[in-house]
Amino acid sequence: MAEYERISLDVANGVATLTFTLPEVANALDIDALKEVMDALYRIEKRDDVGALVLTGEGDKAFCAGINLKEVPLDEGDAEIDHHFRYKAMWWHQVMHKLTRIRLPVLSAVNGIAAGGGFGIVLASDMAVCVDSARFLCSWHANGVANDGATSYTLAKIVGFRRAMQMMLTNQTLEAEEACDWGIVNRVYPQAEFAQHVAAIAADLAAGPTHLQAMAKERFHMGWRQSIEECTEFEIQNIMDSLAHPYFKASLRRFVNKEGRNDQVKVRLP
Amino acid sequence: MAEYERISLDVANGVATLTFTLPEVANALDIDALKEVMDALYRIEKRDDVGALVLTGEGDKAFCAGINLKEVPLDEGDAEIDHHFRYKAMWWHQVMHKLTRIRLPVLSAVNGIAAGGGFGIVLASDMAVCVDSARFLCSWHANGVANDGATSYTLAKIVGFRRAMQMMLTNQTLEAEEACDWGIVNRVYPQAEFAQHVAAIAADLAAGPTHLQAMAKERFHMGWRQSIEECTEFEIQNIMDSLAHPYFKASLRRFVNKEGRNDQVKVRLP
Amino acid sequence: MAEYERISLDVANGVATLTFTLPEVANALDIDALKEVMDALYRIEKRDDVGALVLTGEGDKAFCAGINLKEVPLDEGDAEIDHHFRYKAMWWHQVMHKLTRIRLPVLSAVNGIAAGGGFGIVLASDMAVCVDSARFLCSWHANGVANDGATSYTLAKIVGFRRAMQMMLTNQTLEAEEACDWGIVNRVYPQAEFAQHVAAIAADLAAGPTHLQAMAKERFHMGWRQSIEECTEFEIQNIMDSLAHPYFKASLRRFVNKEGRNDQVKVRLP
Repeated sequence: MAEYERISLDVANGVATLTFTLPEVANALDIDALKEVMDALYRIEKRDDVGALVLTGEGDKAFCAGINLKEVPLDEGDAEIDHHFRYKAMWWHQVMHKLTRIRLPVLSAVNGIAAGGGFGIVLASDMAVCVDSARFLCSWHANGVANDGATSYTLAKIVGFRRAMQMMLTNQTLEAEEACDWGIVNRVYPQAEFAQHVAAIAADLAAGPTHLQAMAKERFHMGWRQSIEECTEFEIQNIMDSLAHPYFKASLRRFVNKEGRNDQVKVRLP
Repeated sequence: MAEYERISLDVANGVATLTFTLPEVANALDIDALKEVMDALYRIEKRDDVGALVLTGEGDKAFCAGINLKEVPLDEGDAEIDHHFRYKAMWWHQVMHKLTRIRLPVLSAVNGIAAGGGFGIVLASDMAVCVDSARFLCSWHANGVANDGATSYTLAKIVGFRRAMQMMLTNQTLEAEEACDWGIVNRVYPQAEFAQHVAAIAADLAAGPTHLQAMAKERFHMGWRQSIEECTEFEIQNIMDSLAHPYFKASLRRFVNKEGRNDQVKVRLP
Repeated sequence: MAEYERISLDVANGVATLTFTLPEVANALDIDALKEVMDALYRIEKRDDVGALVLTGEGDKAFCAGINLKEVPLDEGDAEIDHHFRYKAMWWHQVMHKLTRIRLPVLSAVNGIAAGGGFGIVLASDMAVCVDSARFLCSWHANGVANDGATSYTLAKIVGFRRAMQMMLTNQTLEAEEACDWGIVNRVYPQAEFAQHVAAIAADLAAGPTHLQAMAKERFHMGWRQSIEECTEFEIQNIMDSLAHPYFKASLRRFVNKEGRNDQVKVRLP
């Protein structure tokens, strides 16, 4: 496993856990951190022993506060500032693209505040759970910059157009329960039970059929903007691909022989 | 009326009721059943005396369990298995396309479990109501195949991207009340009142202006992925078409003469 | 300021308030009213002293009842009727396009019933609040015409596909609280507190960074139907544009110097 300085990556029981380890800056990610995340995502995807990816932050304060604004070379001239943002946005967005394209289920385990780009990471994940002290915040407008982090792709897909505009225009801080009501997170847990629930959900996800999970993820992203006829054509192609996988015959034989098929793929969400 | 073996089709009071009549296999549909459904859909659409379509299942256990996996020729070689699925998906998807394109309001009356492709039918309908014992389940991943039935077109349009991923990745069984909270069904009724409410809602839908209902349906499917300018151009075309229909002048005269216009098109949802 | 007869336009504290002033017809808008609205929108957008637009209706009965059906030349022949609708829809849709494109946050302050095209105005706004006596109604089908007012663009983006079909097919009247649960309005207030809350929210919106609010609005409309990669490319362009604005450096310096950055852009929604 590569040595990282700004993140940690652990693999156990089929679950890769990528932790942002910069709690002293609320897990804000600089360019070196983003490069480490990209490196980790590509390594994880290639491993046959990984069936799910968990993203989380170190400490009990922050999941990820987005970019670290203190790094902006504010006194070095406009060209330097521009370069800094363009370069950082480019790397950040590569991470966002990869999170939505990686052929693994991605679970954000939101252990604290998720602000700006950090909120964007939560939104680009396939599922998300949080501690009851977690908070969600757009923050771009307070920092004087346009929203990015793919939020104009992800946010309205989850909360609808009206609430997306509300969060961005008001810069409101959403509490955990409201984030769950709006569908931003799938579950909220008390701090004391959080780690154990995250581990169990991730293990269930990892035990599921990775190739089918990856197909579903790709389908939902693309199906959003396809006609029904184009969408079902892609679905048939996926059906055909899934039949070629050994998982299919094993599943079907269990079903025909009444061997508890339904318990096999079931991610429990207490 | 054609004679069907796997479905029944009844027309009364302007309402066509298509019932899946294979309760011994949880109303799972084989290819012959799908062909009967397609035949029925085309016949219904041509009838001037039909103003709404209700889909339901026989019995109090299942609405529709999707495809019948016991029919898969598991021991006849990969080419046969592939052919079976490709052929079935093709027919199933023709039904889904037609449900979304048919120029009638479609109401799913979910009398029990809706799983896999059966869940897809509910999602592709224009409206849906269910008994309180109904359950909703993706089930594809448990069966070892990729999701289809147009779910990657329909599901996220109704519950948003996050909850769509949750249902597919966890394979959770959603209960009736939660399905209603999420917008999957419009209403939940106790078993004892179900048939009467379905009949009343369907009769109200059938009494409404079929041509306008068909335009609305087409518009919402297309408007999802159009620019506002493209969308309003289609809306104007529909306005023009609707003026040419005798229903328009009759409605407007009632309005101008204050003859209870607003009670005329009102589908009651107790 | 231009003199208007069917609307009023007031600017104070950075907030432009456009009021429909035809309470005797439930603020239904005729073509002259629509022309006044268009004129006002273009004038407002050019003013440097305006940071937010509020839309509301005079009186405590109606926000806007859509078009005035009593104006339809019902006895002048089909060509005249067609011309009337085509002309009115064209003007109405120009207003809808401009509401979604205007580079200002738009808040609908729904003071009573919003029906037909009036409901469409609420949906096309960026945010909306209402009095507890407000009601929301599609109404097209009762009037014998196809839905327009960009509702097939806006409604499903806010409430999802299923509830959009429900509202249109049933022609149900949605009460204020349910409209809030569904995300149609962001908040509901008692009549006695309505004006004061609208003024405060609008003032907060106006105090925010107009250029960033405009970028967010454009992004959410376009991002709905873009791939993530196309979307983030536009986001980067917006980031670059926002850096060139003096607002950026001022914001960032406040942040670095810990001068209460987060309180600066915060629209309070009691």
